[in-house]
Amino acid sequence: MKTRILKILRNYPDYISGQELCESIGVSRTAVWKIINKLKEEGYQIEAVQNRGYHMVSCPDIVTESEIVSRLSTKWAGKKILYFNEVDSTNNQAKREAENGAAHGTLVVADSQSAGKGRRGRSWSSPVGTGVFMSLILKPELHPEYASMLTLVVALATARALEEITGLSAMIKWPNDIVVNKKKVVGILTEMSTEMESIHYVVAGVGINVNMDKLPEEINKTATSLRIELGKPTNRAVLIEAFLRYFEEYYEKFERDKDLSNLMVPYNERLINKGNMVKILGTNEEYVGKALGINKRGGLLVERENGIEMITSGEVSVRGVYGYV
Amino acid sequence: MKTRILKILRNYPDYISGQELCESIGVSRTAVWKIINKLKEEGYQIEAVQNRGYHMVSCPDIVTESEIVSRLSTKWAGKKILYFNEVDSTNNQAKREAENGAAHGTLVVADSQSAGKGRRGRSWSSPVGTGVFMSLILKPELHPEYASMLTLVVALATARALEEITGLSAMIKWPNDIVVNKKKVVGILTEMSTEMESIHYVVAGVGINVNMDKLPEEINKTATSLRIELGKPTNRAVLIEAFLRYFEEYYEKFERDKDLSNLMVPYNERLINKGNMVKILGTNEEYVGKALGINKRGGLLVERENGIEMITSGEVSVRGVYGYV
Repeated sequence: MKTRILKILRNYPDYISGQELCESIGVSRTAVWKIINKLKEEGYQIEAVQNRGYHMVSCPDIVTESEIVSRLSTKWAGKKILYFNEVDSTNNQAKREAENGAAHGTLVVADSQSAGKGRRGRSWSSPVGTGVFMSLILKPELHPEYASMLTLVVALATARALEEITGLSAMIKWPNDIVVNKKKVVGILTEMSTEMESIHYVVAGVGINVNMDKLPEEINKTATSLRIELGKPTNRAVLIEAFLRYFEEYYEKFERDKDLSNLMVPYNERLINKGNMVKILGTNEEYVGKALGINKRGGLLVERENGIEMITSGEVSVRGVYGYV
Repeated sequence: MKTRILKILRNYPDYISGQELCESIGVSRTAVWKIINKLKEEGYQIEAVQNRGYHMVSCPDIVTESEIVSRLSTKWAGKKILYFNEVDSTNNQAKREAENGAAHGTLVVADSQSAGKGRRGRSWSSPVGTGVFMSLILKPELHPEYASMLTLVVALATARALEEITGLSAMIKWPNDIVVNKKKVVGILTEMSTEMESIHYVVAGVGINVNMDKLPEEINKTATSLRIELGKPTNRAVLIEAFLRYFEEYYEKFERDKDLSNLMVPYNERLINKGNMVKILGTNEEYVGKALGINKRGGLLVERENGIEMITSGEVSVRGVYGYV
């Protein structure tokens, strides 16, 4: 009900009378009044004017269930939101929820993480109230081999959401980092639980540096936040909504095609170092080649003197001429 | 200490004096006496004769930590045993232990399972004290793609252990069921938790029907127990020891080669329906072909009119001329 009131208040161009609110939701005026008070406590500025009714002046930058759901237009992505003030990591929480039967499309969101995770056990700085820390639970009917492509779908959806909401140019560092002005602004960590031939669930974790004024010194040469790049804050729930909308669209294409044939063009348009020389650091060898783009299986095609190589393994690190990217 | 006393008692050909036992372990006679009493309570028949000492007459069919560890000669497989009277399923318990940091090679064993699992969410009948219900925790440094081969390594080790201990001919139904006299006697369920490009852990669950007098009617046409086939009971800890020994040997070959090139010969020797016509039931098609054996990647090669096909997906069901196999 809170979600419905929020949705009406946000979308109503003018003041809406208490009477109208009650009728459109089908509850008593007291019930509406109580919820309005609760919203005010959460930081929503809602004006109440005699004879005119309620009007939302501003909404806080929070990522609660109501705040996100009241913005959604998706069919299944994020239809169930599990919000936490703090979790160890949203991926860990999402795994626990998935084990306990959470549905495909459930989104775990937290305002902070006490043990945010990056790839390969690295940590991810997650201070309160400044970042998007979210993990989407997916239960695709796919062979586990196909799942590595999913992480590219997540990357593309995140890049598109950033572009739409901030106007910044979001580039993708293969396979799944998002880079703005040559610095990393999003990390994606996809984990899964499988049998040998079928997936129990996938947890796609997305961490976005949104409103941090500055980043820890150890990383501020290679990482940035949207606020640093834009010079102003971005509403996190707005970003999440956009991500879910793009993700749902792209996921359905991926699910239908079982590959990235309908996503590789927009992905490659954003691929940093496309057409440039990159250094490939493998476990056993190191070489330089020209990055051509991904193929429909999500592998990175690199042109070498003796032909074109397809890189699939995360063991490999791809470097451009700059420090990070 | 219990494990060490057990090991000495089991391997000593004659009576061993209390004095000698104390000295070889370095504890007091009272301590030895207490442990002997504890062992008797667990069902070990230990004779104590004045002036001669202790002698183990028989040991019970139990699968406790001491009983298994006192038999082990492996380097890492099963060096840590976690024994439970009852768990939901050893795979679930092993996953929890792995999440909490259990080491590579840790074995979870239970005397019964309240919710034993088969592949694809099927249940596995697990009455108290009659079966081997165990799950081995592995933390291989492998790309997740390679893990499907692991399940064949487990199958081969289980088949070899059954043969050695029971003398029965154990055949493998690709990829990982073990069949005795054309009926299923072992089920293997391998699950894993991964990032896209690296494995957190693998849990290899093995369920062996050992000492059941009879099986539930729903399955007794296609499944059997070792006792039914042998006409006598088999010691479960002895089976577990043999499994761990073979598994360690085969795993090290697999780890070194990153494929089954040194295991495919013994695997194929046990492959039921090798050289026979089999029916392949895929999601979209159904056809008949001749099963040739596995290749070094663990795929089943099937000869059709228009060439040889390699079957990798568990979506596919392979049937011979008989009901189950």
